[in-house]
Amino acid sequence: MFRQMKNSALSALGRRTALPPISWLMQTALARPRLISLAAGFTDNATLPVEISRKLLNEILRSPKIGRPALQYGITAGEMNLRKLTAAHLRKLDSSSFSSSSLVLEQKSRTRTRRKGEDEKRHSPERVMITGGSQQLLYMTLEALCDEGDIVLVEDPTYFVFLSILQSQGIRARGVRLERDGIDLAHLEKILERLKKSGELRRVKALYLVSYFQNPTGVTTSFAKKAGALKVLKKFERAAGHPIYLLEDSAYRELRFSGDDTPSALMVPGASRNVIYTGTYSKPYAPGARIGFGILPEPLFTAVQRIKGNHDFGTANLLQQLLARALETGLYDKHVVKIEKRYGQKARVMKQALAEHFPKSVEIWESGGGLYFWARLPKNVATGIQSEVFQTALKNDVLYVPGGICYADDPSRRKPDHEMRISFGSASEENIRKGIARLGSVLKKFIK
Amino acid sequence: MFRQMKNSALSALGRRTALPPISWLMQTALARPRLISLAAGFTDNATLPVEISRKLLNEILRSPKIGRPALQYGITAGEMNLRKLTAAHLRKLDSSSFSSSSLVLEQKSRTRTRRKGEDEKRHSPERVMITGGSQQLLYMTLEALCDEGDIVLVEDPTYFVFLSILQSQGIRARGVRLERDGIDLAHLEKILERLKKSGELRRVKALYLVSYFQNPTGVTTSFAKKAGALKVLKKFERAAGHPIYLLEDSAYRELRFSGDDTPSALMVPGASRNVIYTGTYSKPYAPGARIGFGILPEPLFTAVQRIKGNHDFGTANLLQQLLARALETGLYDKHVVKIEKRYGQKARVMKQALAEHFPKSVEIWESGGGLYFWARLPKNVATGIQSEVFQTALKNDVLYVPGGICYADDPSRRKPDHEMRISFGSASEENIRKGIARLGSVLKKFIK
Repeated sequence: MFRQMKNSALSALGRRTALPPISWLMQTALARPRLISLAAGFTDNATLPVEISRKLLNEILRSPKIGRPALQYGITAGEMNLRKLTAAHLRKLDSSSFSSSSLVLEQKSRTRTRRKGEDEKRHSPERVMITGGSQQLLYMTLEALCDEGDIVLVEDPTYFVFLSILQSQGIRARGVRLERDGIDLAHLEKILERLKKSGELRRVKALYLVSYFQNPTGVTTSFAKKAGALKVLKKFERAAGHPIYLLEDSAYRELRFSGDDTPSALMVPGASRNVIYTGTYSKPYAPGARIGFGILPEPLFTAVQRIKGNHDFGTANLLQQLLARALETGLYDKHVVKIEKRYGQKARVMKQALAEHFPKSVEIWESGGGLYFWARLPKNVATGIQSEVFQTALKNDVLYVPGGICYADDPSRRKPDHEMRISFGSASEENIRKGIARLGSVLKKFIK
Repeated sequence: MFRQMKNSALSALGRRTALPPISWLMQTALARPRLISLAAGFTDNATLPVEISRKLLNEILRSPKIGRPALQYGITAGEMNLRKLTAAHLRKLDSSSFSSSSLVLEQKSRTRTRRKGEDEKRHSPERVMITGGSQQLLYMTLEALCDEGDIVLVEDPTYFVFLSILQSQGIRARGVRLERDGIDLAHLEKILERLKKSGELRRVKALYLVSYFQNPTGVTTSFAKKAGALKVLKKFERAAGHPIYLLEDSAYRELRFSGDDTPSALMVPGASRNVIYTGTYSKPYAPGARIGFGILPEPLFTAVQRIKGNHDFGTANLLQQLLARALETGLYDKHVVKIEKRYGQKARVMKQALAEHFPKSVEIWESGGGLYFWARLPKNVATGIQSEVFQTALKNDVLYVPGGICYADDPSRRKPDHEMRISFGSASEENIRKGIARLGSVLKKFIK
């Protein structure tokens, strides 16, 4: 990449940080005006809360005296009001999903009393941190946890920008097989056993799960699997010499248009001290008013707070107040209902188009939320950027994300390259229909 | 700090990142309601642009169609419109200050033709990056440049949050003596000679200068010293094996209430490829709408852009559009004139109070801009947090920043501890008078 940089002053991180694969795709999209992009993970433009935001900002800035705090510096961890509202919001999501889950009730009864105090603190505002999107929190959490050469376990496949951070920071990744309800727990255990044998267990710091309507597959991890994963991690904790955290990324949780919500891993009895939960208001509200958040146990909360002090000593107050007010007034909840409907409709359109235009031998993983469907072609049909499928699709003005870029560099297995992520997030209904029709015709050329 | 963290999973960076010294001061201030803080670097609350911001946000969000881009994802390096406006803004500042400087005219005539093409690109929008405050840009620039153990030269004293980043990332600092018009160039050369002899020159990546109304001393670096520093750095470049960058932090540049502007180091003929310039709209406009920016030469621009992709894939669009509109409409410039007047007035109040209440043996460094004056006590009078002066001041409800925390951990010299930073930024005129009177009485107890 950096050919001219042999004699440059760049650090190892500076040289290592690669051009994100998605950048190339986005540039390609911009260069072809007729192209329909089913690649972008952008949210739906038409549902962005323009009027709500104008109304709320007018209230926040209605007089010089009332408006000033929104334009002044704040606190590194975030405004306490928004932290409280966020804690309450998550408590509400988790309590209602928890009580509706029978499996959970069974576990609940087994909760040991000595853990109870800790469990009650799981949604404490003191553990909530407000960040510039959940992306920033993922970045800082990895900074706080991992040295170069450390290992993070990820879903196979996973969110590719997370893989970019790992690569940039020199962190190794190991992929855990993904099933329709979350990772394969037996595979997780096998990987950890293998790392224990090779003496590398102390390098393992976390398991990263995009647990709701996963990017890229749309898979939601069941609560049973969250509990199971925590149990496996716990088992290896002593040999590792430190906790192995479950880093739960819930970015798509509130873009749910069918089925029930699932409790977060914070609700697994006795486990909240081993869970880092990250979420965002970006996707359900507005990416342009980027506010993310997380719940972190100590000592991570303190470490990440200090790191954030060095990054930016706190996220812009104006945006924090906008989100706080949206939550307080109930306009946030109303907006979420609206966009859930919209994405539900777009997902149905995509589902119908796929049924109509895709060859039957392509396995489709539908999702009850989020922005993505996952398509698995026969194993001998490659989908990567150099592949005939991708190049023909491009010629026919339709773009998807090749599945291969969502797999970590893990020397212990070959990267699958016969899958694709297709998004109904930003394309219009008409373009979803057209795009899938175009992609279907391309696939029919390569799949009998 | 992290006593319980012996068996924790934290990284070296996570363990190393210290509580910023200013946090303790801020907590102290909050705990004593009567206390007058001359410590905070906050901007003046009364001048925050509440009405302007409301007006501009109403325009940006005036209709769903027009408002949507402000609420959608953008581009990692920043919106091109704001990058162009920022480039034009800096070009204007640099051209007018450059042409009014006779020294510069002399240098100008010596510009070699082969450098001219490069020099004309110095304010190119393609080199401008928009960030979440200039703090984020400083952080990412250090990530891109420095490995653990590398060396950055800093002013002695310098901006203490920059020192926190260095410490967190494991970067060593060397302090260059500061004079009233910038660093001592002979000392800079001596330090580099010494590092060359000890074989450490290849570890030296940058010289960091807070070049306008410096935090903490209020010193502005003359253009001649910028040119001189670049010449010295250039001299050692070959032996270092790579460029040694001048990292110019102009955070306070537009808070100028007396004297002329100084051209940035970008204006030194033939040098713009070795200059990283960072600036911010936070302080002149609003910290709560945190937008910073920088001009970076290649390969740094590309490296930092990729790192920003991992941090947050671009700063919140809504804030970028707010600042773009403020610049476009001329409201930004009008606002800057207003706050310059206000700070000028507050600085005069502080100057008078100092003349009235401080012992004559205290040397005051006044500033023609920014937020700070610098007070140098007799060398035998300590000002650190444990000192009698500090503790007595606290008892008398007045707070300052002890000079000692602004000095890098540099084993080659003792840290001076007889100075203090006093800010007229956030306190009211009345509190400036009262605070200085209180501090003066305390000092008179310890200084004959």
